[in-house]
Amino acid sequence: MIIICGNAGKTQIDKLTEKFQADGFRTHVSQGTETTIIGLIGDTSKIDVEDVEAIDIVEKVQRVSEPYKLVNRKFHEEDTIIDVNGVKIGGGHFAVMAGPCSIESEEQIVSCAKAVKAAGATFLRGGAFKPRTSPYAFRGLKAKGLELLLTAKKETGLPVVTELMSLEHLDLFNDVDVIQIGARNMQNFEMLAEIGKCKKPILLKRGLANTIEEWLMSAEYIMSGGNENVILCERGIRTFETATRNTFDVSAIPVLHHLTHLPVIADPSHAAGKSALIKPLAKSAAAAGADGLMIEVHPNPSQALCDGAQSLTPDAFSDVMADVKKICELENKIF
Amino acid sequence: MIIICGNAGKTQIDKLTEKFQADGFRTHVSQGTETTIIGLIGDTSKIDVEDVEAIDIVEKVQRVSEPYKLVNRKFHEEDTIIDVNGVKIGGGHFAVMAGPCSIESEEQIVSCAKAVKAAGATFLRGGAFKPRTSPYAFRGLKAKGLELLLTAKKETGLPVVTELMSLEHLDLFNDVDVIQIGARNMQNFEMLAEIGKCKKPILLKRGLANTIEEWLMSAEYIMSGGNENVILCERGIRTFETATRNTFDVSAIPVLHHLTHLPVIADPSHAAGKSALIKPLAKSAAAAGADGLMIEVHPNPSQALCDGAQSLTPDAFSDVMADVKKICELENKIF
Amino acid sequence: MIIICGNAGKTQIDKLTEKFQADGFRTHVSQGTETTIIGLIGDTSKIDVEDVEAIDIVEKVQRVSEPYKLVNRKFHEEDTIIDVNGVKIGGGHFAVMAGPCSIESEEQIVSCAKAVKAAGATFLRGGAFKPRTSPYAFRGLKAKGLELLLTAKKETGLPVVTELMSLEHLDLFNDVDVIQIGARNMQNFEMLAEIGKCKKPILLKRGLANTIEEWLMSAEYIMSGGNENVILCERGIRTFETATRNTFDVSAIPVLHHLTHLPVIADPSHAAGKSALIKPLAKSAAAAGADGLMIEVHPNPSQALCDGAQSLTPDAFSDVMADVKKICELENKIF
Amino acid sequence: MIIICGNAGKTQIDKLTEKFQADGFRTHVSQGTETTIIGLIGDTSKIDVEDVEAIDIVEKVQRVSEPYKLVNRKFHEEDTIIDVNGVKIGGGHFAVMAGPCSIESEEQIVSCAKAVKAAGATFLRGGAFKPRTSPYAFRGLKAKGLELLLTAKKETGLPVVTELMSLEHLDLFNDVDVIQIGARNMQNFEMLAEIGKCKKPILLKRGLANTIEEWLMSAEYIMSGGNENVILCERGIRTFETATRNTFDVSAIPVLHHLTHLPVIADPSHAAGKSALIKPLAKSAAAAGADGLMIEVHPNPSQALCDGAQSLTPDAFSDVMADVKKICELENKIF
Repeated sequence: MIIICGNAGKTQIDKLTEKFQADGFRTHVSQGTETTIIGLIGDTSKIDVEDVEAIDIVEKVQRVSEPYKLVNRKFHEEDTIIDVNGVKIGGGHFAVMAGPCSIESEEQIVSCAKAVKAAGATFLRGGAFKPRTSPYAFRGLKAKGLELLLTAKKETGLPVVTELMSLEHLDLFNDVDVIQIGARNMQNFEMLAEIGKCKKPILLKRGLANTIEEWLMSAEYIMSGGNENVILCERGIRTFETATRNTFDVSAIPVLHHLTHLPVIADPSHAAGKSALIKPLAKSAAAAGADGLMIEVHPNPSQALCDGAQSLTPDAFSDVMADVKKICELENKIF
Repeated sequence: MIIICGNAGKTQIDKLTEKFQADGFRTHVSQGTETTIIGLIGDTSKIDVEDVEAIDIVEKVQRVSEPYKLVNRKFHEEDTIIDVNGVKIGGGHFAVMAGPCSIESEEQIVSCAKAVKAAGATFLRGGAFKPRTSPYAFRGLKAKGLELLLTAKKETGLPVVTELMSLEHLDLFNDVDVIQIGARNMQNFEMLAEIGKCKKPILLKRGLANTIEEWLMSAEYIMSGGNENVILCERGIRTFETATRNTFDVSAIPVLHHLTHLPVIADPSHAAGKSALIKPLAKSAAAAGADGLMIEVHPNPSQALCDGAQSLTPDAFSDVMADVKKICELENKIF
Repeated sequence: MIIICGNAGKTQIDKLTEKFQADGFRTHVSQGTETTIIGLIGDTSKIDVEDVEAIDIVEKVQRVSEPYKLVNRKFHEEDTIIDVNGVKIGGGHFAVMAGPCSIESEEQIVSCAKAVKAAGATFLRGGAFKPRTSPYAFRGLKAKGLELLLTAKKETGLPVVTELMSLEHLDLFNDVDVIQIGARNMQNFEMLAEIGKCKKPILLKRGLANTIEEWLMSAEYIMSGGNENVILCERGIRTFETATRNTFDVSAIPVLHHLTHLPVIADPSHAAGKSALIKPLAKSAAAAGADGLMIEVHPNPSQALCDGAQSLTPDAFSDVMADVKKICELENKIF
Repeated sequence: MIIICGNAGKTQIDKLTEKFQADGFRTHVSQGTETTIIGLIGDTSKIDVEDVEAIDIVEKVQRVSEPYKLVNRKFHEEDTIIDVNGVKIGGGHFAVMAGPCSIESEEQIVSCAKAVKAAGATFLRGGAFKPRTSPYAFRGLKAKGLELLLTAKKETGLPVVTELMSLEHLDLFNDVDVIQIGARNMQNFEMLAEIGKCKKPILLKRGLANTIEEWLMSAEYIMSGGNENVILCERGIRTFETATRNTFDVSAIPVLHHLTHLPVIADPSHAAGKSALIKPLAKSAAAAGADGLMIEVHPNPSQALCDGAQSLTPDAFSDVMADVKKICELENKIF
């Protein structure tokens, strides 16, 4: 780590280097006319850049090595391939997680599961616990919803993905195949630390306004707990643009593939917020090298209780799948 | 709520209005040449605008009334004044919450408590559970930290404010006077719903990239649970600018005073990330009408274990207080 | 246009409606308990929403019809196809504009032109006037650079695209085939109005932080001047993310195809800022339906005087073209 | 400048250092296990960080010294005080620029000039050339407007400030006291270079989404042309928040005072977009140390042709001035 200090006296610089030495770092100081540069040698992953930048004599801090280790491709070159009951994600394996925003009834989730399976989905997604901006909005069928999701799993054999909103519900997730951590909980550090202790695959969505580095640090939380099965999911970030619900950061896909060995999928449904945009965004994600997609499908969108209308009908979904398959072929992805 | 639809057929419009009528709304349709406008009459607070905008034939949705009720000044004109063991916030009462980022030792927190009290602070703040981007960084003394905080409370009589990071810790907070919900948990809806059931004052920090409306909806979660003691705290938002840790949104203070009756305080320490900026930002917040401030003070900043150097020394803090007091006098604030 | 007013007296509402009537609009007022809604009928394209929202009694303003007419697909359903000396863009025709960031020498631009033509480029791009953040940086060969660009045009027959930075240079652009308006001049309204008077195709880049609507309004400036040959170019927007130079807004491509009949191309070089990202972004843009690409290619990137290293070598460029061609085939694009 | 390279071979590093040496820099290479750090010694102000970061083997670039020199406080410690016909700005002198968004008639501008002078304004502002998002909106009285502005100057003796939108209009600005460069032209580099050649004070507004460093580089353009009279004006930046027209970045004021010797004023009218917010924002700017304010005042806001309603009435303006004066007294500002 390189620390650039403004016009500071020798005593201040000494005080600072001694502090770092006391924390077990070696320091290398090069004194310029207006600036002093301190090189910090040691495990800087436990240092928060903002803490150091907050020091009055410090002007800028630049990391030399990334603050994450376990998720870092530099120390784990080959792609991580996550195997969920035989369904693989990453390393050339393309996965499609489809289903309704929220689980509403056995009929709805089972019919939807069959439809998305027929269209090529490899996972069933469905929300039992729903994060809602308004306390007055429908917040999901909760435990009952999980039961229905597992019924659909039995009926179709599709592994299931669903969101965990509180550690207090964790016991209910025993038969869930992939636990989703939503955008709003991406930096719920207590939750990340806790789910790091289980071995279940975790689908970690990107926070609304989190950098790729912060996202990787959240994945590091999970891996440092002992759980190596982390899937990253780009779902759009918050910007000044209002034409789309979020701005789909397609660049994050190749950037992540360079920085980490973990699989990266994309959720065009939440990024776009408009069903008409799902097809072009799904194709752009696949063309950018995504390892999979998460797409909302509802047997009867206009009657959906939540996010309904951004969902695709089963027919529209198979149409999207047909195009995505062609791009996966160009990409030599197994799908 | 006004819903603007593009060139859609009568059957589509009818299908949509019937759906809303089924949900208990009255609808008023005015048919134009290229657009149809649907007026929705009823309690639209449970409707998520994004869900409606996601409907394919819908082009734009515009709320006529705010989605929040209990926090809305329209239905509660006078300022809410929150009384914490006799210390008041809001409605002309200015509160100052000061103390270290994290609690490190009894000596540290007690001496700091005495120092900030002497300088004019009305609350003691200190972190026992610390949110950290890196799993390898110091995350606070946890339960032990709370004990030390309560010791400092006994020694000085200052009411204490500290952050809750997980509902599983709630039992430890019985003697805490004000529970802080951090920026990263502003949309941790399960937590908001749960703390809405207690009567303790809640300090709700603004999320890194949350709009003022989303922030008020999170306050509505707490109030709808039955807890009317909510204090809003502006701490800077995330933007493209990197010269400051966050961009301090000073406008949020007067905007909130117009929209809600709840007290609004500001946290210049986290907004700025540099101790040199705390004084001008604290003054600007007071001049914009803030009901209080939250400021990090550490007896020995350069030795702090976390955010240390963005903290003020007790002397620097009393210097800031002296200037803030003068502005509070101009504002006729009781401080 | 729908104007939502807060608790305002009848006289205030009357005063406001009279003002609009005086401006030639018809008004329709519906009075609610807490809010009054004013419907404005007439040509609202000349009204600036922000001006109306600034009115004290106004809470929100919602357009019913878009503020742009000539660029609006609603009034011009079929795609606009721009023909530049027989090379077409839009309506199924895919164009590739390639070349160096800046023109450095006859040898450089001519060899580069030949190389990109061989690899499949249909236009030669090259900067003679360069926008630079620093007054001390290289700002292009200016007039001399244009001469060299035209030499390369003669040698290869490729139509040329280059940026106009000041109206005072316009006379030098007579033999240039497509005039580029850079991101920083997207709202240089005097320039937009002036180039609207010529008939040359204009490549209008999106501003660093401009919305799609503002971008379309700038295109409307050009078209309202009489020039119908406008090509829109997405080049990334400014967000909080720093892993890429800009955030490539791939969604803008399908969104624009829905809103306007004008062709839309993408510039992955400036969006990414890293040559390694150009290939995946170029493919994602093509898969999202882009009508073309603008890519920086330099015979010897590491020696380039500007943006050099984000450029591709001719070999790397043909590699990208090979993949893009395959996607264009899936998209039934003529390329 | 410090350049951090990823795992690159010695030949690549040598090639890179040779390139920099050829450009006249001295290089200092320190080879680590996974990274190589290149220190660049020399005048790096002409280097664009993004160009270097674009180099494939480069991971990060960190400046040691700022890219700006003439505007840098490090090389010019004392505040610059700009004297406009005896009216001073900066170094303890507080200036207030007030007047209508656009000049509409002699009666309007003259009466407004008298009113703002009576209330304490030290400059008259008024728009003759107006930047408008829509080509169909009113764009100012242009040359005629400038005449009327100068009439008001004669009548009141107030120096005048007005916006230049194109170099072609420059000749008309001979009797204008301060030339305003609007937010949308902050990076119109040809314009900046040109006005750097005159000696007139320049009011440089911050771009909608420009960093403080980019803003200072634009000021450096003007100063490097020979014009030392630059005033910086914060007017709000573009963020995700829609409750205000822009997000007023009050922190920019103390940050700029630390980085540069140039005076810094604030424009709460454009930042807020709502007249009700002007007073609290004007006060917060003064409390943060601003050297002045720019405020829109209109004799009859509701009849204004542009931005009218965000303007204050003369009475509301004197009310704001009364409060601002009190804060200036606390700040020991001459006003």
